[in-house]
Amino acid sequence: MSGNVTRTELRDRIDDLIGYELEQSDRVFDAELESWHPYVTDVIAHVTRFRGKRLRPILLLLSAKACGGSRPDHHVLAAVVEMIHTATLVHDDVLDESETRRHVATVNSRWNTETSVLCGDYLFTHAFHLAASLESTLACRMIGRATNLVCEGELCQVHERANCDLSEEQYFRIIDGKTAELCALSCVLGAHGADADLASTERMEQYGRSLGMAFQIADDLLDIVGSEQTTGKSLGTDYRKQKLTLPVIRLLSTADATSAVELRDCLAHPSADHHAEINRRLHDSHSLEYARAKANEFAVDARDQLSGLPESEARRILTDITDFVCRRSF
Amino acid sequence: MSGNVTRTELRDRIDDLIGYELEQSDRVFDAELESWHPYVTDVIAHVTRFRGKRLRPILLLLSAKACGGSRPDHHVLAAVVEMIHTATLVHDDVLDESETRRHVATVNSRWNTETSVLCGDYLFTHAFHLAASLESTLACRMIGRATNLVCEGELCQVHERANCDLSEEQYFRIIDGKTAELCALSCVLGAHGADADLASTERMEQYGRSLGMAFQIADDLLDIVGSEQTTGKSLGTDYRKQKLTLPVIRLLSTADATSAVELRDCLAHPSADHHAEINRRLHDSHSLEYARAKANEFAVDARDQLSGLPESEARRILTDITDFVCRRSF
Repeated sequence: MSGNVTRTELRDRIDDLIGYELEQSDRVFDAELESWHPYVTDVIAHVTRFRGKRLRPILLLLSAKACGGSRPDHHVLAAVVEMIHTATLVHDDVLDESETRRHVATVNSRWNTETSVLCGDYLFTHAFHLAASLESTLACRMIGRATNLVCEGELCQVHERANCDLSEEQYFRIIDGKTAELCALSCVLGAHGADADLASTERMEQYGRSLGMAFQIADDLLDIVGSEQTTGKSLGTDYRKQKLTLPVIRLLSTADATSAVELRDCLAHPSADHHAEINRRLHDSHSLEYARAKANEFAVDARDQLSGLPESEARRILTDITDFVCRRSF
Repeated sequence: MSGNVTRTELRDRIDDLIGYELEQSDRVFDAELESWHPYVTDVIAHVTRFRGKRLRPILLLLSAKACGGSRPDHHVLAAVVEMIHTATLVHDDVLDESETRRHVATVNSRWNTETSVLCGDYLFTHAFHLAASLESTLACRMIGRATNLVCEGELCQVHERANCDLSEEQYFRIIDGKTAELCALSCVLGAHGADADLASTERMEQYGRSLGMAFQIADDLLDIVGSEQTTGKSLGTDYRKQKLTLPVIRLLSTADATSAVELRDCLAHPSADHHAEINRRLHDSHSLEYARAKANEFAVDARDQLSGLPESEARRILTDITDFVCRRSF
């Protein structure tokens, strides 16, 4: 694997290999969401501006390619996973009261909470409707199962808010549901439709899961150390919403008794001063490095899963993505 | 048809005919929503206390009986339509900022908005997951299509808020999506699984649609003239949220120029005094009677659709339900 692949190089190689498939998937996405009502059309046109990295459709299409080749059903499934992801983003922005997403206003800030909630629902129901357009119910079942776990993970996260005793294990279980599950699903749907054998499908699932874990840890790090200009979204929301992420969990578990009391106070009473204090301690301790190392461990596990696949450009890109998710700044 | 059937009589006859099927459907509902996480279990246990009339599963199971007989798949589908309906109720309570539903605290008032949004999502994804447990994708497709229209109807309603020029036709189109569609779907799923022929299925769909229209008009009337104690939910929310419903649309369209200006002012600036003024004018004019008559027209149309079905207790109950939805006070 190359440790120095740039974002642009990676994007170009992805476009060369699956540009056509991604375009087909975008078309399916747009066609599914067409509405007779100008307001719905406006809201959906706005939401499609959130379209960013398209990590999940890319994982799905690359997994298909790496396991034997993609088919037209994969374009539909790629649109489905992106639609589900977009639905969760729209609802996340309601929960986090965020104002920007991919450099544009969130639905709740551009319109209102009602529109956000319903727009997320609209994306969810259309995703299922689209999945049901395929012949077999197997994809519907897998998608239903995975989205159940996504919602459960998100509900647990809300429940554990402000819980300073949250363990690493509990944190991993939450992000496994809310993020890794959909990445794992994307890879399974890709492999499955390409007629991969059971062992390969299971390894692709584990690849997606570990990659998703690395991705979420890196995402949580960006909420602390990222730049709003580069990420294009509101940052610092985890602290504001009292969501404990890996660096903070690590900081709490390694702090001496006095510091721990002070930290808990800073976390229990969000303010600009307390936020600055937490960030100072996160930087001074090795908590950020610790989280980065954990993300890396997951990335290495993801990479290992690919060893059984035949050599191919799809496999090489999947490998490079594992490196990239840990280093990304957007 | 009997014009004097009471709520208790109707409930007893429904229990005699489909009590077993409803119980099976409740079991499927509960089993589908089981979670490893105590918090999710708590929230879902709370939500099941909203379980009230169960109109949609009743329509589904009665349609099946009236068209030849119900099967185990119908129990699953009855749970699916109730779960979708419950999801929309939970999200409606967020949109309306309601505090009570079926005499218990709403999820947003018992916990918070985040939990409400995610709990609704959890119900939606589980409904689809459950639908996908059946063999054919046809039910998934029909459910996906109907839920798309439900969300579209709700989005349009939010968009048309405070629009004093909303026409009856636009109002009917909105409630057709947000309410009638799911009733129509329930009847179609019942008829379809009972192997009804195309003509009967279409008539059952129209029965469900017209019944749903009557039901929603009656529901909107209850928001004006109902008692919170009897309905068990927060009332007056349509006025507070500037949602124009049929009596108000009628009042505006029949008011003279001076009154219309005053009314628009009362609607544009919600307050207790303005609310009382609107209610006084709704009572003094014939606007409430007009809406009641319209609900009745839809109920008559629903009843007419049943004429082609063979005589049966299921058909008699479906007939009596059309009468009941217009007179209900809860």
